[in-house]
Amino acid sequence: MSKRILILGGDGFLGWPTALNQSAKGNEVLIVDNYFRRNTSDEYKVNTLYDIPKLDERVKIWKQLKNKSIQVEIGDICDYEFLLNCVKHFKPDVIIHYAEQPSAPFSMMGHKEASFTLKNNLMGTLNLIFAVKEIDINIHIVKLGTMGEYGTPNIDIEEGYLQVEHKGRNDKFLFPRQAGSLYHTTKIQDTDLLFFYVRVWGLKVTDLMQGPVYGLFTDEMEDDDDLLTAFNYDEIFGTVLNRFMVQAVAGIPLTIYGKGGQTRGYLNLLDTLKCIDLAIQNPPESPELRILNQFTETFTVNELADLVIKSSELIGLKTRKEIVTNPRKELEGHYYNPSAKGFKNLGLKPHLLTEDIICKILQKIMRFKNKINSEIIQPKTKWT
Amino acid sequence: MSKRILILGGDGFLGWPTALNQSAKGNEVLIVDNYFRRNTSDEYKVNTLYDIPKLDERVKIWKQLKNKSIQVEIGDICDYEFLLNCVKHFKPDVIIHYAEQPSAPFSMMGHKEASFTLKNNLMGTLNLIFAVKEIDINIHIVKLGTMGEYGTPNIDIEEGYLQVEHKGRNDKFLFPRQAGSLYHTTKIQDTDLLFFYVRVWGLKVTDLMQGPVYGLFTDEMEDDDDLLTAFNYDEIFGTVLNRFMVQAVAGIPLTIYGKGGQTRGYLNLLDTLKCIDLAIQNPPESPELRILNQFTETFTVNELADLVIKSSELIGLKTRKEIVTNPRKELEGHYYNPSAKGFKNLGLKPHLLTEDIICKILQKIMRFKNKINSEIIQPKTKWT
Repeated sequence: MSKRILILGGDGFLGWPTALNQSAKGNEVLIVDNYFRRNTSDEYKVNTLYDIPKLDERVKIWKQLKNKSIQVEIGDICDYEFLLNCVKHFKPDVIIHYAEQPSAPFSMMGHKEASFTLKNNLMGTLNLIFAVKEIDINIHIVKLGTMGEYGTPNIDIEEGYLQVEHKGRNDKFLFPRQAGSLYHTTKIQDTDLLFFYVRVWGLKVTDLMQGPVYGLFTDEMEDDDDLLTAFNYDEIFGTVLNRFMVQAVAGIPLTIYGKGGQTRGYLNLLDTLKCIDLAIQNPPESPELRILNQFTETFTVNELADLVIKSSELIGLKTRKEIVTNPRKELEGHYYNPSAKGFKNLGLKPHLLTEDIICKILQKIMRFKNKINSEIIQPKTKWT
Repeated sequence: MSKRILILGGDGFLGWPTALNQSAKGNEVLIVDNYFRRNTSDEYKVNTLYDIPKLDERVKIWKQLKNKSIQVEIGDICDYEFLLNCVKHFKPDVIIHYAEQPSAPFSMMGHKEASFTLKNNLMGTLNLIFAVKEIDINIHIVKLGTMGEYGTPNIDIEEGYLQVEHKGRNDKFLFPRQAGSLYHTTKIQDTDLLFFYVRVWGLKVTDLMQGPVYGLFTDEMEDDDDLLTAFNYDEIFGTVLNRFMVQAVAGIPLTIYGKGGQTRGYLNLLDTLKCIDLAIQNPPESPELRILNQFTETFTVNELADLVIKSSELIGLKTRKEIVTNPRKELEGHYYNPSAKGFKNLGLKPHLLTEDIICKILQKIMRFKNKINSEIIQPKTKWT
């Protein structure tokens, strides 16, 4: 049966492919976005590898190609009346919440950026909670969280909760969390907000603790380059794998922050879309903060760099690693053993990171080689 | 040696007695307050038992009595430039942060009050962190937290941290927290903010997990009724013990929310002042989020009611308990075994809650009996 999906932050790297994917499946989609990412990219001069048409143009192209409509509302979810009206009129079954400021370096730039991140991420989430309470408490909230909430503890990372035994007594708690940036800290805080209102009001929430996502290729974006999602390789919105691949294409050494033993859980964009869809298809039946860890395999930074170097050689690019001072404050070698059974149990078949996939992305980047701005790659924002 | 003490929220129930107490000890005191509590009491018509002169008048009285000056700045710490200027010009050794919206029922009233609580409590704390980083990272931040951050777990509550063993490995985390109102949730969140910046920037912070405070009598407030701190018995700013005592004086039954087995850690205002002073005298020597549990004894709601009834009888008042539907969502009977060794080790000698003390407060209340507004006692704000 067709569902009504409201996507907050539907112009973003994940929001847009999610909108297309859900529309292709026959669901009704409304995108809400305030163009924060576009405006910030302009303001800080860190544009994506290629230009991205605005939403009204993109949904027109989609309509022409597939004869499917995606609705768009440009506005800010921190404006409660605006958000409330969107929820009231669209009557979603599911709200996917991607509308947070997602950059760790941005959140560490200064007071202005830190304030914005804190206010945007928490007030937006609070407004969402109140809008759902006001309009229909049974709307399923799917919130994008991050594996970064857990940090890098010296114990195995479970999915969301931990059974604790202490002095002969037991209780179950949210898994202890300790993040590495203000951005990641706001994600701990929004989980706490949702957790509280789940207990008091009976919200139905799926909180996805996601690792960094790579990939550009989804069935829905293949037919027209103007449907491609953003590709960021800059210090603000880029991820380490994107940076390495752009450095390989640009003939710049791959910059390793410190020892390069930082381990994280990664996943392919295709698996993000599948996870979101699995979450939508399997809503909590009763009030619950259901937490799922969303990644498919773990890599150290050095392993990623080696994989990019090997893949680059396959298509005739020559590159090497270069160690730079770590701008962040983080462990550069640590225990890391996170669980991710939830989505496997729901049926996820992972697309693993292969040389083939990296080569395919490298070849895409090569088409835009002359647009690469190497000025925006090196980190300027320091944690301390 | 004299210290410079900046008190954020210095017009409040605890802020004002702290200001007097620190001034009496020979420290330089600057009070910053935005009169939120006064303005809100007016707006929601829940005034204190007696009128409280404004700060400029109160510091004049103090000056006349003791020949000691207390500086006052009226303004909002959510205005970063204002706060930064206060810190820059006053050059405090210690900043005591009482400037959060402190009412659980207020935070549960509706969207407006929830938004205000979240924004005020987190943006204020973020501004404080940035101001300290900007002016002097060695300023000791003493933040008022709450025992409510821990909630009522089924394991012993330690002071701030918990050593966790899991699948044969070990790590130390912030003690798991799960609060009972949005207000209490924002206190979890501000602890997370401070914890993050302690780790990244090296702040020196003492976070005081305090229980409900009772008492009106401190050496500094004895000489002039216009120096008394506020006494709230309303559903917004009142505490359960204040409510019971006012009900006893007014001849209204003491209202028990549900089963009355809710257990909390309480302390006398004199012990709050002593704890604050001990924290000031013993700052962390190196960067640390030092967490101390601040209460002296635990009571169930029923035990408090029985104590008030017994004390009332001693001075000729007759009253009884009455069970009402619990407006809150909380356990009405639960395990509760919190630790509070830190302050005992620093030298705290508790003033315990006796019938004598309750009688003394009851007699004070009786002087203002004709001012009691029984309309504002019953809870109107429901959690669900």
